[in-house]
Parts: sequence; structure tokens; C-alpha cells
Amino acid sequence: MDYALIWGATGGIGRAVLAGVRAAGLHPLAIARDPLPLEAEGYDAYAADVTRPHDVAAAALWAAQQSGGAVALWVYAVGAMSNGPLADTSTEALSAAIDVNLIGAHRAVHHSLPLIPAGGHLIFLGAYPDRIALPKLGAYAAGKAALDSYITVLAKELRDRTVTNLRLSAVDTPLWQRAPFRLPRGARQPHEVADTVLRVYRERTRGVVEA
Amino acid sequence: MDYALIWGATGGIGRAVLAGVRAAGLHPLAIARDPLPLEAEGYDAYAADVTRPHDVAAAALWAAQQSGGAVALWVYAVGAMSNGPLADTSTEALSAAIDVNLIGAHRAVHHSLPLIPAGGHLIFLGAYPDRIALPKLGAYAAGKAALDSYITVLAKELRDRTVTNLRLSAVDTPLWQRAPFRLPRGARQPHEVADTVLRVYRERTRGVVEA
Repeated sequence: MDYALIWGATGGIGRAVLAGVRAAGLHPLAIARDPLPLEAEGYDAYAADVTRPHDVAAAALWAAQQSGGAVALWVYAVGAMSNGPLADTSTEALSAAIDVNLIGAHRAVHHSLPLIPAGGHLIFLGAYPDRIALPKLGAYAAGKAALDSYITVLAKELRDRTVTNLRLSAVDTPLWQRAPFRLPRGARQPHEVADTVLRVYRERTRGVVEA
Repeated sequence: MDYALIWGATGGIGRAVLAGVRAAGLHPLAIARDPLPLEAEGYDAYAADVTRPHDVAAAALWAAQQSGGAVALWVYAVGAMSNGPLADTSTEALSAAIDVNLIGAHRAVHHSLPLIPAGGHLIFLGAYPDRIALPKLGAYAAGKAALDSYITVLAKELRDRTVTNLRLSAVDTPLWQRAPFRLPRGARQPHEVADTVLRVYRERTRGVVEA
């Protein structure tokens, strides 16, 4: 059975991806800050916060043991919204937004790569940098823009894996409770994003996918 | 006389901007990690590293005293190149690249804003995120992409100042000694960038300027 490693599995999208992956016949391994609700639903889950280096290293070791070191699908669904004008944003708050949206992703990549054999697939849930560069979203926009460029470079460097940057429009998740404006009409549902993740995985679509 | 505050004044571009600003009749205030060569040329200069919070706060106080609290032109010319594939880049190295290219900019903005009255002009020397997302440039590309989005949001939020994002192509500076490939043919000279900075300032051009 193919293993899928999902980072950020209790977020609105991560949870849907987890369910979609299981329904598709993959064996999901869930990493989340609070894995208890996932374990209650029968998922193999591990507690980790991507901003904590030791957590990420330990989570990768756990995933190695669970999967026997062969993860076919790796998904980064961690993200955090911010809300406030940059003039009122401390450097600490800006750093924290970068830490979860970019540095955490790199930490997870760094520790996971040995588990992803050639042919494995890494999918990042990103955003359209130009669309989210909006008032009161500065820290979030900077972090997601950094991640977007990071993914582009990683895709060019990791020639033997498939790397996909799934640029999402608005998705109806609890993240929006922290946004400076209401969820736009026509926002996608998390299960639709999960369907896109699985389609991208089946079709081995690399590069930027607009969703 | 109008004051111009230049952050990163000993870099290849910063140095040229400093000279251009003085030639144009503005009174430049230079902030640099090593201000001694600038002082030897008669510039008012102050030692600060933008990655050190105390340095930035002290530099802003110095600029306040020098300028009487009225900076007409503010230029952020700090930047650092990185070189290496992401798989070999530690999270510390990635964080350091973000710290100098993004967080340092925010720190400088944060402490400088009280010195920039309504109508003042902030010019950032940025890059084209899409063009620099190249192998071995991951940390640099992520930092500059974050800065690019940061500037876009700042420009929308600071309605009473002019904010310009000067997206530079390759410029012939010592920064390129650390790049993973040679300086492209047709690269611009620092004095040309300084001319563009002054033109943008005179014409009060806001938003993205491709240079």
C-alpha cells in the first residue's frame, strides 16, 4: 500500500485531504498539532508543530517507522492567517507568520525528503501571491509569496520527484475566521480541494496548478 | 534641505544611490554595517545591521536627530544573496536570508515611519520574483518574493506616503560574487539604478517600477 504523509492534517483543508486520501486507498499518516480527534477516527496520527524543530524531526522519524521509509504522496497543508496593517505588525509577528508559512514548510521538507523515494510526489497548498497582497494581510501575503517562490525553486532542483504548487483561491475553512474580510462568494469547499490533490497525484501534474 | 535616509548604503547599489542623492541636492543620511568609508567621503553615516533590532532602533533615533524628524526620501537597499540547493539549506540559513531581505526591511520601516511625514517617499530595491526563482537561489528568491508582497501591501496601507517597489534586473555589484552563476550580459550599472531612484522620487511614481 502507498503511504501519504499529510502535514497540517487538522486544518480545514488538511482534514479533507486526509479523508480523501484514505477513500482513495492510500494509507494516510497524519501530522497535526492536536492528533487526538484524528486518532479517534482511526487515523495514524502524530503530534507536531512545524515551528518546533524537534517536533518535525520526531514526526519524520515516526513517519519513517510507519511507512517503512517510502512515502508516495507528501502534502503540506499547514498555514496560518494574519490580520492587521503592517505599520501595527511587530517584527516578531511578521517572523511568526514566516515561520509557519515558509520555514515550517522547509523544516518538513528537510526531514521528509529521505522518506520520499524517486518518483514520489510533494504537493504544497499555496496561494496566488498577487491576489492575497491586500491590506491587513501583509504578514500572510509575505509568507505565502515566500513559499510560492520556494516551491518553484524546489521543483527545479528536485528533478527526480514530482513537486506541485497548488495555488488555491479562497476555501471555506476556519482559517477565514481570522481574515480581515468575509469569505468571498464562490469559495471552494475543502473536499473539492482534496479531489484536486488526488487528481494531481494520479496524473502526476507538476509545477503550478491553479485551483 | 530635504533629507534622504539610505539603508544599506555601502552595498553596490546603496553606495551609488547615496552619491546620486547628494549630487541631486538632497542631504543623504547613510546607514550601513560599516560606515567608516562613507564618513571618509564626508557623508553623515551611522553603523547598523538591519538584523539587529537595537541597531535599527538606534539608527532611526540618529536619523531623527540629524534630519529634525523629516525624511523626504527613504531607500531600502539592503539585500543578501544566497547560493545553494534547498535540500542542502538549513532552516537557520533560510531564516537568515529572510531576516535580512524581509524582516530587516520591516524593522527599518517600523522605526523609520515616524520620521517620514505625509507626502514622504519610500523606495525599496526589490527583484522580479518570477525571474529569480532559479536553482540554488531558493533562499534568496523566497526572501525577495516575501519582500515584494510586503511592499505591495504596504503601498496599499500607507495611503499618505508614496511607496515604490523598484524591481531590479541584474545589476553589476559585488553581490554577484556570491551568486550561483555569472552576471548576465547587459546587467545595469549601479549609477543607472541611482538615476532611476531619483527619477522615481522626482516624478513621485508609486507602485511597481520595472528597472
